[in-house]
Amino acid sequence: MSVSAAARVSTGIAGLDDMLHGGLLAGSAVLVEGAPGTGKSTLGMQFINYGAAQANEPGLILTFETFPRQYYRDASNFGWDFRALEDANKLRVIMTSPEVTRADLRSVNGHLESMAAQLQAKRVLVDSLSHFERLTNDPVELRQIVYEFINGLKRMGLTAMLIRENSALLGEAPNVEEDLAFVTDGYILLRYLELAGAVRRALLVLKLRGSDHAKDIRQYEITPRGVEVRAKFEGQQGIMSGNPVSTSAEAFVQAFGRKK
Amino acid sequence: MSVSAAARVSTGIAGLDDMLHGGLLAGSAVLVEGAPGTGKSTLGMQFINYGAAQANEPGLILTFETFPRQYYRDASNFGWDFRALEDANKLRVIMTSPEVTRADLRSVNGHLESMAAQLQAKRVLVDSLSHFERLTNDPVELRQIVYEFINGLKRMGLTAMLIRENSALLGEAPNVEEDLAFVTDGYILLRYLELAGAVRRALLVLKLRGSDHAKDIRQYEITPRGVEVRAKFEGQQGIMSGNPVSTSAEAFVQAFGRKK
Amino acid sequence: MSVSAAARVSTGIAGLDDMLHGGLLAGSAVLVEGAPGTGKSTLGMQFINYGAAQANEPGLILTFETFPRQYYRDASNFGWDFRALEDANKLRVIMTSPEVTRADLRSVNGHLESMAAQLQAKRVLVDSLSHFERLTNDPVELRQIVYEFINGLKRMGLTAMLIRENSALLGEAPNVEEDLAFVTDGYILLRYLELAGAVRRALLVLKLRGSDHAKDIRQYEITPRGVEVRAKFEGQQGIMSGNPVSTSAEAFVQAFGRKK
Amino acid sequence: MSVSAAARVSTGIAGLDDMLHGGLLAGSAVLVEGAPGTGKSTLGMQFINYGAAQANEPGLILTFETFPRQYYRDASNFGWDFRALEDANKLRVIMTSPEVTRADLRSVNGHLESMAAQLQAKRVLVDSLSHFERLTNDPVELRQIVYEFINGLKRMGLTAMLIRENSALLGEAPNVEEDLAFVTDGYILLRYLELAGAVRRALLVLKLRGSDHAKDIRQYEITPRGVEVRAKFEGQQGIMSGNPVSTSAEAFVQAFGRKK
Amino acid sequence: MSVSAAARVSTGIAGLDDMLHGGLLAGSAVLVEGAPGTGKSTLGMQFINYGAAQANEPGLILTFETFPRQYYRDASNFGWDFRALEDANKLRVIMTSPEVTRADLRSVNGHLESMAAQLQAKRVLVDSLSHFERLTNDPVELRQIVYEFINGLKRMGLTAMLIRENSALLGEAPNVEEDLAFVTDGYILLRYLELAGAVRRALLVLKLRGSDHAKDIRQYEITPRGVEVRAKFEGQQGIMSGNPVSTSAEAFVQAFGRKK
Amino acid sequence: MSVSAAARVSTGIAGLDDMLHGGLLAGSAVLVEGAPGTGKSTLGMQFINYGAAQANEPGLILTFETFPRQYYRDASNFGWDFRALEDANKLRVIMTSPEVTRADLRSVNGHLESMAAQLQAKRVLVDSLSHFERLTNDPVELRQIVYEFINGLKRMGLTAMLIRENSALLGEAPNVEEDLAFVTDGYILLRYLELAGAVRRALLVLKLRGSDHAKDIRQYEITPRGVEVRAKFEGQQGIMSGNPVSTSAEAFVQAFGRKK
Repeated sequence: MSVSAAARVSTGIAGLDDMLHGGLLAGSAVLVEGAPGTGKSTLGMQFINYGAAQANEPGLILTFETFPRQYYRDASNFGWDFRALEDANKLRVIMTSPEVTRADLRSVNGHLESMAAQLQAKRVLVDSLSHFERLTNDPVELRQIVYEFINGLKRMGLTAMLIRENSALLGEAPNVEEDLAFVTDGYILLRYLELAGAVRRALLVLKLRGSDHAKDIRQYEITPRGVEVRAKFEGQQGIMSGNPVSTSAEAFVQAFGRKK
Repeated sequence: MSVSAAARVSTGIAGLDDMLHGGLLAGSAVLVEGAPGTGKSTLGMQFINYGAAQANEPGLILTFETFPRQYYRDASNFGWDFRALEDANKLRVIMTSPEVTRADLRSVNGHLESMAAQLQAKRVLVDSLSHFERLTNDPVELRQIVYEFINGLKRMGLTAMLIRENSALLGEAPNVEEDLAFVTDGYILLRYLELAGAVRRALLVLKLRGSDHAKDIRQYEITPRGVEVRAKFEGQQGIMSGNPVSTSAEAFVQAFGRKK
Repeated sequence: MSVSAAARVSTGIAGLDDMLHGGLLAGSAVLVEGAPGTGKSTLGMQFINYGAAQANEPGLILTFETFPRQYYRDASNFGWDFRALEDANKLRVIMTSPEVTRADLRSVNGHLESMAAQLQAKRVLVDSLSHFERLTNDPVELRQIVYEFINGLKRMGLTAMLIRENSALLGEAPNVEEDLAFVTDGYILLRYLELAGAVRRALLVLKLRGSDHAKDIRQYEITPRGVEVRAKFEGQQGIMSGNPVSTSAEAFVQAFGRKK
Repeated sequence: MSVSAAARVSTGIAGLDDMLHGGLLAGSAVLVEGAPGTGKSTLGMQFINYGAAQANEPGLILTFETFPRQYYRDASNFGWDFRALEDANKLRVIMTSPEVTRADLRSVNGHLESMAAQLQAKRVLVDSLSHFERLTNDPVELRQIVYEFINGLKRMGLTAMLIRENSALLGEAPNVEEDLAFVTDGYILLRYLELAGAVRRALLVLKLRGSDHAKDIRQYEITPRGVEVRAKFEGQQGIMSGNPVSTSAEAFVQAFGRKK
Repeated sequence: MSVSAAARVSTGIAGLDDMLHGGLLAGSAVLVEGAPGTGKSTLGMQFINYGAAQANEPGLILTFETFPRQYYRDASNFGWDFRALEDANKLRVIMTSPEVTRADLRSVNGHLESMAAQLQAKRVLVDSLSHFERLTNDPVELRQIVYEFINGLKRMGLTAMLIRENSALLGEAPNVEEDLAFVTDGYILLRYLELAGAVRRALLVLKLRGSDHAKDIRQYEITPRGVEVRAKFEGQQGIMSGNPVSTSAEAFVQAFGRKK
Repeated sequence: MSVSAAARVSTGIAGLDDMLHGGLLAGSAVLVEGAPGTGKSTLGMQFINYGAAQANEPGLILTFETFPRQYYRDASNFGWDFRALEDANKLRVIMTSPEVTRADLRSVNGHLESMAAQLQAKRVLVDSLSHFERLTNDPVELRQIVYEFINGLKRMGLTAMLIRENSALLGEAPNVEEDLAFVTDGYILLRYLELAGAVRRALLVLKLRGSDHAKDIRQYEITPRGVEVRAKFEGQQGIMSGNPVSTSAEAFVQAFGRKK
C-alpha cells in the first residue's frame, strides 16, 4: 500500500481535509487537543455527523461525562439531527466509563463490538481521552491502557477521533509528564491566540502517520454550520505561543530585542 | 432549536450582553474567573439584581464564605437593595457549604429546589466554585462533583453564573491541574493588565456553547453603578499576558520600508 | 449607605489617602503585601501612629515575631514615640501567637476585646498574616481561619491593616496556591522595580471593596518621616514585572513620521 | 585508531551522513530524540532498512509497544518491505519488554545474542528507550540500567540507534531530572519550530563521541522516500526555542548605514 | 535615637560604606546573598579583618563547613593575617555546627558569649546561614530558629554579617519558600550579570532598617586587596535579571518587542 | 603566600590557562560543568594527559560509570595513549563507586592514597561528581560528603578536576536545590549556544578562589587535538541564556539619534 493509495475518511470539514491531503487515513486514530471553548467537541460531532448523514459511514460517540441529551442539543445548534440519525441506525451516543469501555473491549463479543457490527460503524468519537487518566496515576500504565484501547477500536475497523483537553489557555501546558500523542496516528492541535485585541483560534496538524500533511497554521471559526477552516495566518510569528507578533516589525525589532 | 432562537438571559450589563450576542443562553451555566479585585462578585450581584429587580427573574445567591450581611452592604454600594428584594420574595442569599449543597441537590425535594420553586427563581449565583475544591483532592472526582452540581442547577431551570478565583494577578495561573471550564457552557475571563503606568481591567468571552460571541478583549470599569464594559483595546498586543505592548511599531517599520 | 458617604480612616500618608479616595473604609480589613525591605512594617506603624497620635483613634499592634522593643526602636527612627503612646493608653504592642489570638477572638470577652474596649481602639496592625500559615498546611482551612480572624477584628469595630510577606523580589511569587486577598476588603501591593540602574519602589491599590480608587502605579520612598507616596511612573511599561521599559519609543516613532 | 580512520555506518540519509562526517561510528550507540510526529521512528526504520536492504548489515528492531505489523505497514508507506527482509533473514522485529530484554542481555547465550549471531546483525533500533523508565523511579538506577543495556548491545557488535520521546512540542522539556544523553555516544535532536505561519522540522547533532560533526541546524522533511535532510536554516536566530526570529534586521541596519 | 545619630560600623569597603550611608548600624544583622564565586566570603572576611586590624573591633567567624585553616589561606591571598589577629586576641575562627551554636546561645554564660566577652568582640561573620536549613524542613520553624539566633547575637552586642548562598547563577532562585531576609535588619545582594560577552558582578542594598541607603546597582570587583565597589551601571536595564540590555537601544526597541 | 606567587597547574589547554591567569592553583579542586556533548570528559582527559605525558605530574582518573577501555578508546581519538601512560606508571584509570571511594578516603592508608603515593600523582579527574547524588537524597548531607571527599583529595596533594553533568541544553537547570559549586575552589562552565543557525560552545570561569581570572565568555571547539579555546564572543548579548542577540542595535540607534 503506497502513501497515495491509502483510503481517506473525510472529516466533513473541507479546509481540514485539505490540510490532511484528503482526510484521515481509514483505520487510524487521531488525537484532537485544545483548551476549553476551542471547539473540540464541535469538530468531533461534525466528523461523526458527516459520516452518518452524508458518507454512509455510521458512527459511535463514546462519552464519559456529557449526557447524550446534551449532544442532541449541541448538535442541533449546528443543524445536525442526532436523534434522527440514531433512529435511522446511523449513530449511537453511548454514555459509559473508561473502566467499562476497557473491560468491554477486552472481552470476546463485547457490547461495543456488537453495536459497531450492527450499525456497520466506520467512525468513532471518544470524548474525552482525558477521562482515562482517572484509571491510574502511573503515566506508563496509562499509556499502555490507551494503546490497548486504541488497538481495540482499530480491530473493529473504526477510524477514531480522540479528544484531549488541554488546560493551558495560551501556549503549552507546563507539566507534560506523558504524551499520549506518541501512541496515536495523528495529532491535531487547536489553539487560542491573541491578535489585534481579540482572541482567535488556530488549527495545525502535527502528525499524520503514513501521509504527508499541510504544515501551516490556519485560522478557523465556529459558525452556525460547524467548524470552518480559513486561511493561513500571514505575517505572524509565534502563533503557537498564543501571543504572536507581526513579522514585518518582528524581523526588524528582534535583533535588538531580547528573549527572556 | 436553532442558534438564533435560543432564549437569552440578560446579564444586566449592556456591553457584556452585546459581547454575548444578547445575553446568556437560558438554562446554561457560565464560569466567571478573575483575580482578587477584578469585580467577579460585583458582576455576579449585578446579574442577580437585574433579574430580580428588573426582569422578573428571581434569583438565588449561594455563598460558601461571605456572610449575607456583607452582600447587603456590598450591593448597597451600587444602589442595589438586596434586603428589599428578599422581602419581596425576589431573592434569597443562602450561606451554606459545598457539602450541604451537594447532598441537598441529590435528594428528592431538597431545600434548594423548594426555595427555587417558591420564588420561581430563574437565576443563581454561586460564590464561589473554588470552595468545592475542599471536597476532594482528586481533580477527576472534583470535576464529577461540579458536573453533577451544575446539572442539579440546570434541572431546577436556573441560569447559573459560577465564580472562580484565580490567584495569578497577571497572566495565567502556573499550575492548572484540572480545568472546570471544560464542564461549563460558557467561560468569561476577567483580567488585570498594566497600561501606561496604571492597572486596567479587561474582559473576554472564551466559550459560549450554542452561540457565537464577540472575540475581542474589552476594557471594563467598576463604577458606582456596577460593572461597565467599555471599548475594545486598540493598538495593543499581549493583553492576556497582562503586560501589552503598542503595535504602532508596524506603522513605523512600513514607513522605513524593508529591503529584504 | 452610598459609596461617597462611607466613613474614611486616614492612613497617615497623604499620597496613599489620595489613591484610596480619602482613606480606608472604616471597619474594613486591608492586605498590604511586599518583599523584604519594601517598607510594609513602616507603612503599618505609620497607620497606627497617625491614628493614636493625631486622629484620636487608638490602635493595637499584633506581632507574632518581632519583639515590642524592636517596634519602639524602629518607630523612633521615624520620630514616632510608641512608648509615650502606650503610656497615654493610645497604643498597645502585643506580642502573641496566631494560636492564642485565634482562641482569644473565639472566646466571649476575650483579652483582645477587653483591651480594645479599654483603649477605645479603632485601628489594628497585624504583623504578619504570613504567620497564620503555620497553623495548617491546608490552604482551604487557612483561608477559613483568616476569614474568621478578620471577622473577629471587624466585630470589635477595628479598621485593620494586615501585612503579608512576598518572597519574590521582582514580579509575582511563582507558586500562589491560595490567595488571602480574596477574603480582605482591600489589597495594596508594594513592589521593587529596577529603573535606570537603581532599585525603586512602587505602590498600587488593586482592590478596595465599596469604593473607587486610583488605578495608577506610584513611586514611593521611605524617608526619615516614613513612607511618602510620589508621582505616578510616567513613560514606563511593565512595572509590575519589576523590569519596566521606557515607552518613549513611540515619541521617537512619531518624530520620524508615521504614514498610517 | 585515529578519528578519521573510524569505521562509519551510513544512516541511509545522505544529509545526515554528511552532518555526521560519514555516518555513525561502528559500534556506537546514538540517542535520537523528538516530540510526537517529528519522525523519530521513520528515521530509525530508514537506518535499519538501509542496512538490511542495501549495506548488507542486517538489523534488529526492539519494540516495547508498537506491534510488528504496525512496523510493516509504516515501512511500506516509504516503500520499505520489512516482511521480505525478515524472510531473507536480514531483519527481525522483536516485540518484547524492557524487563525481558534486560534479563536476556545479562544471561549467557541469551535470545537476542543468538538472534543477532544468526542474522550476523550489525544494527539495532530501540523504540523506545523511554519505556525503560517504567523499570524504576530512581533516576540513578535508570541510568545504570540503560548504561548496562547499551554495553550489552555493544558487546554484540551492534551499532545502535536509541529513540527517546520528548513531550515538549517547542523548546526543552521543563523538568529534566536525569539525562540519558550522558551515557550515549551520540545525541541527535529533532525539533519542531514555527516559521512564517507554518510548522517546520529541524535536526541537529549535539554529540558524536570520537568524531567531529556539523554544528549547524538543518531543516528536514518526511517524504514518501523517508527523512530527507535539507539546507541549514539561514537568517534565523532562536531555532532551538521553537520560535525563531529573522536576523535580517542586521541587513536592514546595514542598509541604513552604521557609523560604528 | 534619630536616624542620623545611629552608630555606624564600617564594612571596610569604602564604596559599600558609601552605599550604606556610613556603614552598617551598630548591633544590626545584615544578610549578604550571592551565587558561587560572587565573593560573599571575601566580603565577610574583609568586614571582620577591618574591624579586628583597623577599627579596634574584634570579631568572631562562625563557620559550619569551611575549616579555619582554609580561612587563614583565603585571607592571606588578600594580605589579611588572620593567624596574627588570633594571636593578638582580635579574632576567633570557630568551626561549629548550627545545632551546637543554637544550644550555646540559649544557655546562660554560653561558650560564644564568654568568647565574645573575653575578646570584647564587636563583629561576627556567620558563614553561612544556609546551613541552618539542615535543622528543620519546616520553613516556619527555620525562621523562628534564625530569628532567635540573630537575637542571641544582638544580645551579645555584635554587629552581624550573615552569608546566604543562592544557587541561581542569573536572576532569582525559582522556588523561594521562605525568606530569611524578613527577619534581618539589612539585605545586600551580590549578583552575576552578562555584559558585552563577559561576566560582571553587581551589588545592591535592598534593605537597611533604620537608615536610608543608596538604591543604585553598582559594579564591584574582587581584587588582590579584597572587594572594591565601583561605579553604578550606566545605561543598562534589567541588571537584576542577569542579562541587561542597553537603554539606548532598549527604549527604542521595546515598544516593538514583546516580553514573554 | 601572595596571590601571584601561588603555584599553577597547567590544564594543557593554552587558552584556558590564559583565562585562569596561568592555570589552576596547585592543590585546588575545580568544578567543570556542562550538558551532554559539551566536552567535559575531553577537557578532563586533556588535563590528565598533559600532566602525565608532558608535565611530569602523574594522574588518577576516578570513574564511576565509564569503563577504563572506553577511556583508552576516547583518549586515542585525540592521540593520547593512556595505555602507555599506565604502563609507564604515569596514570591509573580506576573504576570504582562513590561508596567505595568515600570509605577508602576515610581509612588510614587507603587504597587511593597508596596508589597516589606510588605514582607520585599530582592530578586527579573525577568523572563525575554527579554520581555522588546516589549516596543520599538529603542535599545537606550530599554537600558534606562532597566536601569531605574534596578534602580527602587535597590531603593527598592532588589538584582536582571534578566533572558535573547539567541536563539543561540551553540556559540554567530549572531546579537547583543545592549547589556543589559552593564547596569547590573553582567553577568552570561549558555551555551550548545557538548562533546564526548553528550550535556553538562557550566556556567561562565563574570562580577561582585565591586568584583573579578572565571574566569573558569564550568560544571553544573540540578538535582532533582536544579542546581549543578561541576568541571571546564579540557583539553578542545573552550568551549564557543560550540564545544571544546581536548588540549592533546600539550603533543603529546612535546613527538615527534619539530626540528624547
